[in-house]
This record gives sequence, structure tokens and C-alpha cells, in this order.
Amino acid sequence: MSADLLSHIRIVLSHTSHPGNIGAAARAMKTMGIVSLYLVKPKKFPDAEAEAMASGASDVLRRARVCASLAEALQGTVYALAVSARRRELAHVSADAHSAVQGLLAAAQQGEVAIVFGTEVSGLTNEEILQCRAMAHIPADPAYSSLNLAAAVQVIAYEARVAALGPLALPASEFELARHEDIENFYAHLEQSLLASGFLDPANPRRLIPRLRRLFGRAHLEQEEVNILRGMLNSFRK
Amino acid sequence: MSADLLSHIRIVLSHTSHPGNIGAAARAMKTMGIVSLYLVKPKKFPDAEAEAMASGASDVLRRARVCASLAEALQGTVYALAVSARRRELAHVSADAHSAVQGLLAAAQQGEVAIVFGTEVSGLTNEEILQCRAMAHIPADPAYSSLNLAAAVQVIAYEARVAALGPLALPASEFELARHEDIENFYAHLEQSLLASGFLDPANPRRLIPRLRRLFGRAHLEQEEVNILRGMLNSFRK
Repeated sequence: MSADLLSHIRIVLSHTSHPGNIGAAARAMKTMGIVSLYLVKPKKFPDAEAEAMASGASDVLRRARVCASLAEALQGTVYALAVSARRRELAHVSADAHSAVQGLLAAAQQGEVAIVFGTEVSGLTNEEILQCRAMAHIPADPAYSSLNLAAAVQVIAYEARVAALGPLALPASEFELARHEDIENFYAHLEQSLLASGFLDPANPRRLIPRLRRLFGRAHLEQEEVNILRGMLNSFRK
Repeated sequence: MSADLLSHIRIVLSHTSHPGNIGAAARAMKTMGIVSLYLVKPKKFPDAEAEAMASGASDVLRRARVCASLAEALQGTVYALAVSARRRELAHVSADAHSAVQGLLAAAQQGEVAIVFGTEVSGLTNEEILQCRAMAHIPADPAYSSLNLAAAVQVIAYEARVAALGPLALPASEFELARHEDIENFYAHLEQSLLASGFLDPANPRRLIPRLRRLFGRAHLEQEEVNILRGMLNSFRK
């Protein structure tokens, strides 16, 4: 998959009560590279509070499309995913957010897709859920499942970005890993130093060297760190 | 793993500027079943705005521990994970949030662990990061990586809950799946009905039945749905 797929995703917020939540949701989705926002009958929009909460994502609000119905917001999509933090009686078998987003992105390769969120208090209606193809469940604590609307958008948008970009989402380290032979030379150097200092007794080596190898192995030494360690060993010998 | 592990996790917020963010973070963590909050030198706490944003999570604020230093907040922990939405020059090789949380939970089986978040504007200092064992990177869009503090807490707490509970986090459907033989009886019934109606021509069946099997197979029919479908077929025949 690729980041391009994120441009096929629209976030649909249905009947949102508080404009601040629309702004916070715009910010949340934009941090994950999703910028297409559809609002079904928002109570107040546009609004200064939405702007304030959007922070650097006011462009998302400016381009947001206000719709009279969920059907209008879903027009042209090939897949719609309904999101819920609560267990629902009716409707689709729900998948956990991670799995559900895989299905969404598979569909996004064929066209536009939507992720649909309901109101702050009661979520999506059953009628709205049945207009969607599948349902994503955010596995909140049943004892307190009250995710803020923007928090729910953040979790699902995060899953969508991770699914679209895969491990590429993580920038490569700019530090150069040490080469095998340099690490082996360091171990030889270390052993000599410990023999010279008397800490390693050849007659009774215990498991000193293996334990040190285990420690430094876990550390995934970088080239410069090997140089530093060898410099340290040289300094001790003087 | 199990939900018990979530009680070994403390969320540490360092030098938070806005009390509202502390409240929103408390709400975010509690939705995922994490209730232990440590605050390193918060600018204003306790505060009415924190209470307002915490919504039903004011118990988390009430039990929050205010510390004079990160060292104090990490006392007694066996592992600390530093969280960043930006790429950092220095320090640990960072893992993506999902992988990093696996390491955290493995450590949580041995004792208390911490997830550490920096200030709203500049995140964690390099000095703070170096007090942690590992670093988690939330893969935000490099063009706009400005996650709200509570949003970052929500994403990491979500990953922790998913890692601790696994697929169990998803409640089982309360709908009874149809048994194999009942589905086969439905297919037989369907075929008879289509023959009777003339829609299925035995001399030229095309691929009608296989295509219908494919469609209903994908739907994972429930017991009651099979009954409804067969009732429908009976009704058409009259």
C-alpha cells in the first residue's frame, strides 16, 4: 500500500454538536495525512471555536463539505466504515479497529472510501450504521468507554496511516550501525583489557565474556559507539 | 498478556503547560483502562479546566501524583518509554508506536513501567529521553506532525490496551452463526425456487448458483438470517 491511499479516505462526522470537536477532529486527521472532511448536518459550522481547535489544520475546515444527509456524504464511495467505541446491539459484525482498517484500505485501492463517526453523546444511529459496509470497534474499557470524538478520529486515522505506509512510516535512523568485524574487534579488545586488569581470570573465566556479549549485542552498537568504547578501553590501560 | 498489565503502566506528563490538556489526557488514558497518572512540574495543577476536560475521569486527576523531577516520576519502574511524534536527532533508535508498546508490556510483566510525554510545544528534552529505556515514534505526517498531547496519549494508550488484551478486546457477536447444513439447505431451497421461477435454466445455468454461493458465503450468514431468507423464498413461491 502507499500514502496515496490516504487521499482516497474521507472522514465523515454526522450531526456533531460542538464545533470545537470538529476543529479538533480536523487537526487529528491532518496529523495522519488525511485531509478530506465531510460534515453531515453539523449543529454549528463554520464557527470560531472550530477554527481555534483546528490549530494548523484550518485548511481542512475551509475545504470541508457540509452535507444534508449521510447518503450525500457517502455518494461516490465504494466502502464506508462505521466507527463505534461502544458495543452495538444491531448491525454488522464489528471488527477491531486495526482489522477493520485493513478492509477499508483494500477497498481504497478501487476508489473513494469513508470513515463515519456519529454524535458526541449517542454515536451513530442504527440507520446510519446500516448505510455502511462494515463496522470498526475501538476497544475501549467497558467501564469507561467515553472517547472524545477527536480522540476516536485520531485512533482510526493513526491505524489508517500505519496500514497505508507500513513500517515505512518510521524514519530510518541516521546513525550508522557498526559492522560485524568492528564489533568482534571490540570484543577482542575488551577481553585483552580485562585480562590485563585482572578482572578476567583465565583459570576461572566464569561466564564473563558471554554475558558482556549478550549485553552489547542487545544494544545494537553503532559505529561511533564502538570507537568510543575502544577509546575508553585504551584510556583505562594507561 | 492480560488487562492486569494495564495497572502496571503509569502515564507521565512532563512540564505540561495547559491544565486542560492534563484533563483530556486523563480521559484518554482512562478510556483504555490506564488510571495511574504522574505529573512532572505541571504549570497549573490542580485546575478547574483540567477537571472540565477530564469529563468522567476526574478520579484519575484526584489520584495523580505531582513530582519535582522525571527521576522522581520514574522511581520504582523497570522500563520507561519516551513518546515522540517528531523525529529526534539524538538518543535511542526509535521504534514505531505499535512495536515499542510490545517491549513495554513485556517489561510490565516484571513490574511498573512508564510512558513519558513531553510538553505541548517542544516535547521531551534530550536529557529526559536519555532517562528512558526506549522511544516510541507516532508516525505522524512529517508535513503536519502536531498531535495534541491528549491525542498522543490516546494513540499510545490504545496500542497498550490492544497489546495487553489482544483480540479479546473485541466482544464476541451475540448473533448465532448459521450451521453448515442449514446454509446448504438454504442453497438447495434457493436453487429450487429459481428453477421454479424460470430464472435458472437447467439447460443453460451459466454460473448463477456459484455466484450466489459466493455472495452469501461472504456474508457469514447468521441462523436467523437463513430463516428469513427461506421464509422469503417460500413467500415468492405462492
